Amino acid sequence: MAQKQSAPDATRRSERSRRAIYDAALALVVEVGYPKTTIEGIAARAGVGKQTIYRWWASKADVLLEAFLDLGERAARAAGASGRAAYALPDTGDLAADLKLVLRATVDELRDPAFEAPSRALAAEGVVNEEVGRRFVAELLEPSLRLYVDRLRSAQEAGHVRADVDPRIALELFVSPLAQRWLQRTGPLTHEYTDTLVDYALNGLAPR
Amino acid sequence: MAQKQSAPDATRRSERSRRAIYDAALALVVEVGYPKTTIEGIAARAGVGKQTIYRWWASKADVLLEAFLDLGERAARAAGASGRAAYALPDTGDLAADLKLVLRATVDELRDPAFEAPSRALAAEGVVNEEVGRRFVAELLEPSLRLYVDRLRSAQEAGHVRADVDPRIALELFVSPLAQRWLQRTGPLTHEYTDTLVDYALNGLAPR
Repeated sequence: MAQKQSAPDATRRSERSRRAIYDAALALVVEVGYPKTTIEGIAARAGVGKQTIYRWWASKADVLLEAFLDLGERAARAAGASGRAAYALPDTGDLAADLKLVLRATVDELRDPAFEAPSRALAAEGVVNEEVGRRFVAELLEPSLRLYVDRLRSAQEAGHVRADVDPRIALELFVSPLAQRWLQRTGPLTHEYTDTLVDYALNGLAPR
Repeated sequence: MAQKQSAPDATRRSERSRRAIYDAALALVVEVGYPKTTIEGIAARAGVGKQTIYRWWASKADVLLEAFLDLGERAARAAGASGRAAYALPDTGDLAADLKLVLRATVDELRDPAFEAPSRALAAEGVVNEEVGRRFVAELLEPSLRLYVDRLRSAQEAGHVRADVDPRIALELFVSPLAQRWLQRTGPLTHEYTDTLVDYALNGLAPR
């Protein structure tokens, strides 16, 4: 029944299907929530057979995880990045300036409507569903946090951060306040705010 | 139809109903989630008529909010507190010691199974439902955060915290990491961890 296709046509067609599946998965999780999002529902909305989805992914969690990674890469490309995720934070030798730059970009990303709704749907599910929470943290959040660990280690080597500081805990002084304000809406998300967090974390609250 | 009761009997009976309604509301929000929790469901589970609930509360959000405040007060009494919520943090003159004491107690509370499931159900709903999120933050979370603001102001007067620090932002350096580890399970919750957060926040990450 199917017409014979040249390889590039087949690749383009499957690229279109993949994009339609990502879009359907993200839209559904926003509209009906994670528990009611199903492979069948994603397939119907994307206009593909569910076997097409099962050929590429084992579960709805896998589809959503990839849809999310793809969303992040598209956003990075739109923002003028290289089209691949960043593998390191900037390291100009000025730790405060580098952290402020990255946190300002994170504020902009968190405020982007394309991210907001699906990110909230997945984060909310992770709060009550330990398996989903651990998986998304391990595959989406921790890889970003490792970049802060690397940058703080470099600062330790340069003598800008105390040698006895654990970088994995230290990063939480400026990353977690931003996360909580976003998750729980406990305060406004602005560049001035994240600049302040960096200054407080590096210099400390006690007089010097 | 109803037998005439003396006032103390009526008070006891309504106290029992109130407790049954709180327990039913907390159990339901854990089992079926916030969206599917209804006044009718709470009434059926508590063994009261739904008019009994509407006589005391205007909405399910009101019932859950009070159920939660009551849960906190019962936990505080069980822990030997005065039976009323605390209105101030300890102020021994040693800011680090006072903050460590309170954060260790918060870790114990967050790990208490009686709190865990309903707290997660409400927090998850707040992530996706702005109205619920803002209401619970304003009525449950912010009053606790004000106690940190007061303690930090007292420390500023004593010269232990820099005068130019905004206490409402400063408290996020140790409160938000704990909140994120709890909400997103990004790391273990221990007393050693919260002690470390206090030391990092007060002294800063940069060498002194």
